[in-house]
Amino acid sequence: MTTDARRQLKLGAYISPGGHQAGWRHPDAVPNALMDFELMSHVTRVAESGKMHAVFFPDSCGMAGATSFDRGDLSRARRGRCVYIEPATLLAGLAARTTHIGLIATITTTYNEPFHVARRFASIDHISGGRAGWNLVTSQIEDESWNFGREQHVDHGLRYERAAEFIDVVMGLWDSWEDDAFVLDKAGGQYFDPTKLHFVRHKGAHFNVRGPLNVARSPQGRPIVAQAGTSDVGRDLAARTADLVFTAQLSLEDAREFYADVKARAATYGRGLEEISVLPGLTPIVGRTQGEAEDKYHTLQNMLPDELAVKALERLTGDVDLMKCDFDGPLPPLPPSNSARGRQKMIMDLSDQGMTIRQIARRYAVGSGHLATWGTPSQIADMMQEWLETKGCDGFNVMTPYLPGPLEEFVELVIPELQRRGLFHTEYEGRTLRESLGLRTPPNRFSV
Amino acid sequence: MTTDARRQLKLGAYISPGGHQAGWRHPDAVPNALMDFELMSHVTRVAESGKMHAVFFPDSCGMAGATSFDRGDLSRARRGRCVYIEPATLLAGLAARTTHIGLIATITTTYNEPFHVARRFASIDHISGGRAGWNLVTSQIEDESWNFGREQHVDHGLRYERAAEFIDVVMGLWDSWEDDAFVLDKAGGQYFDPTKLHFVRHKGAHFNVRGPLNVARSPQGRPIVAQAGTSDVGRDLAARTADLVFTAQLSLEDAREFYADVKARAATYGRGLEEISVLPGLTPIVGRTQGEAEDKYHTLQNMLPDELAVKALERLTGDVDLMKCDFDGPLPPLPPSNSARGRQKMIMDLSDQGMTIRQIARRYAVGSGHLATWGTPSQIADMMQEWLETKGCDGFNVMTPYLPGPLEEFVELVIPELQRRGLFHTEYEGRTLRESLGLRTPPNRFSV
Repeated sequence: MTTDARRQLKLGAYISPGGHQAGWRHPDAVPNALMDFELMSHVTRVAESGKMHAVFFPDSCGMAGATSFDRGDLSRARRGRCVYIEPATLLAGLAARTTHIGLIATITTTYNEPFHVARRFASIDHISGGRAGWNLVTSQIEDESWNFGREQHVDHGLRYERAAEFIDVVMGLWDSWEDDAFVLDKAGGQYFDPTKLHFVRHKGAHFNVRGPLNVARSPQGRPIVAQAGTSDVGRDLAARTADLVFTAQLSLEDAREFYADVKARAATYGRGLEEISVLPGLTPIVGRTQGEAEDKYHTLQNMLPDELAVKALERLTGDVDLMKCDFDGPLPPLPPSNSARGRQKMIMDLSDQGMTIRQIARRYAVGSGHLATWGTPSQIADMMQEWLETKGCDGFNVMTPYLPGPLEEFVELVIPELQRRGLFHTEYEGRTLRESLGLRTPPNRFSV
Repeated sequence: MTTDARRQLKLGAYISPGGHQAGWRHPDAVPNALMDFELMSHVTRVAESGKMHAVFFPDSCGMAGATSFDRGDLSRARRGRCVYIEPATLLAGLAARTTHIGLIATITTTYNEPFHVARRFASIDHISGGRAGWNLVTSQIEDESWNFGREQHVDHGLRYERAAEFIDVVMGLWDSWEDDAFVLDKAGGQYFDPTKLHFVRHKGAHFNVRGPLNVARSPQGRPIVAQAGTSDVGRDLAARTADLVFTAQLSLEDAREFYADVKARAATYGRGLEEISVLPGLTPIVGRTQGEAEDKYHTLQNMLPDELAVKALERLTGDVDLMKCDFDGPLPPLPPSNSARGRQKMIMDLSDQGMTIRQIARRYAVGSGHLATWGTPSQIADMMQEWLETKGCDGFNVMTPYLPGPLEEFVELVIPELQRRGLFHTEYEGRTLRESLGLRTPPNRFSV
């Protein structure tokens, strides 16, 4: 195999309250890992020791499955992922415990105000010395809307309209102060240069925000922005505004289509290919031999009752209750989802390939619909290399079935193999996430 | 002097972007201290080395004075307090750097959602092992409203109505999970006990929130709640819901009236005297001799132009422009403030005592309207002891004119004097803020 020395993988560590749906039951798992700050610090330092670009935390403003539970479905109590430290709060704590790794948390645009979000990520960027990233999402589950005065979930189209306006306001607020605004002249009594303070003065359909942000311009110029939408509007928003795109892709063919599409859309916004990186989720189950890896995979799958695996698809099926279907039959027709459209299409595609409900659910369970692979470090590196070199991706968001063991193994076994092949950096390129990703610091819109 | 061994001072360190209005110009000051996480860590560890109960961060969701600046008043650029790390984000970073000190940040109820606030403070409580506190405020300045789609500030009465409902929702969400809800039975596949999950199901005039919170019940049962309102509705809300009351009191007489009133109101809600602590702000300017203390005081005051001192009163004067008044004359009549009513009354009282605009402004400048005193450690301890023993307070929120020197001096010089007198603890009583304050852990409403 040959290696293009100029192109290397970008790797995130996706730290989720779930991972594999039954992962918490594994004998080595810390079952409530995401409520444990010391464990989160450990995991982040492990990822940093492997020179991974960032840790990445998904989020939702409600407990997934709360609505079914409230209607009497107690099976929710047999699944994990109920509680966790709020990710953007967690980032600030992790910033104090690490020095180089990027710190990316999810905050929804659906139930927040741009001023708060701009302020929190600018603050994390300062605390971490330039390592903050915001994963912009729109809320996907009805369980969230009930916590914000709405008994029905906001419509998909409207959510994206709001998200697109939201990010514009946030970017504007991040430019409130020029880099050298604070002259801090004690003798002369001048605190800041009044020509270097700017008001965003945004007036739009969803927001009316004057500014300025009460946080100085951040070490990265602005924090890194990640995005994960796969729908048409989601891709467009990412192409226009995101530095990183997280995505779920089950086949290299689909991944290449997505990759080419996002890069092409970015180009229409005048952005270079290297300005936006595409990172599919990947759950690697590593064994020292192929047999060991397969054993690990089956151990996990055997801990998962079919019923819970099928139940976990409920957010993608709308009013259709799969529990009443024959698990060995095909997926029934589904109404268009107002939740995660990309994920719904994924399970429909698996169905079109002839998989039964049971098979789809068990496949989906491994990494919440993301790609999973099991094998030796060399086999896993082969797969990652192929995806990188054939333009299926710029790297991966590495998911783990449970915590902390599988992440430790990935860092110990797979990363050295990738480094030997020249596919992964052996040192951080700088102190900021932006430097590690090879991205330039954006100029303040008002100073150019 | 005799000491009541059973009653000791509770001391917070109030870490403000301002302190003395001209404090940033002091030769020893770090002028943009609150943008510097390493300095904030240092300051917090200094307070912790002095066994202070908590660090406390005020906040506002906008830059005070932005509106005047926007209208062409460039004098704003000569005052500090423009930018700082968002306090609740900062707390999480400080939690990772400290072990015992309480961590209290301000978040407004006016432009937030209860779900977010409940979640963030529960998260900080987990990260810190039980040291989080929320200072509940209503937004005071018009500069905030402009960042949240409103060109006019929300009315005082409506703000407090919303705040009262807000805290009820937050408290309910904090009881979503009982302490032992997470059984984490790997073999049996049971994650939580379904009888120990509770929905708040709040439906009110301002909020409609179902829950549950997606954070486990926090180490303190619930985070500490602080409150700072001095108006009638503000006092009532504090008496009903707060563990700590921050207040600005310029005379012992006023302080005793306030103290007695808050404790009496708390009693009407069935609360014990020891369940709510009253802490006035105090700026102590410490010298090894009285002359040294006086020099320090005058050095600070001499750095402050009268014009800026008067300008800083603008948020209390409504449409009345003091810049057009004779600084050596009396305060003109002021319309009722929709901002900080307690502070407005304070400057009107100073005027009634015969002080001129210039004198009021310069007096106000020392600690933003809080009590200031200068002297030797012994003199300062005398004053603190008198206030404690005559029921003017349960302790103080110690403010500093700039950072970090004056806080270091307070810890080095005044705290040992208080400890020698038996007025201040020499060790933390426990690992949580609640334990240090001598407060019981509240039971979950659903388990009693």
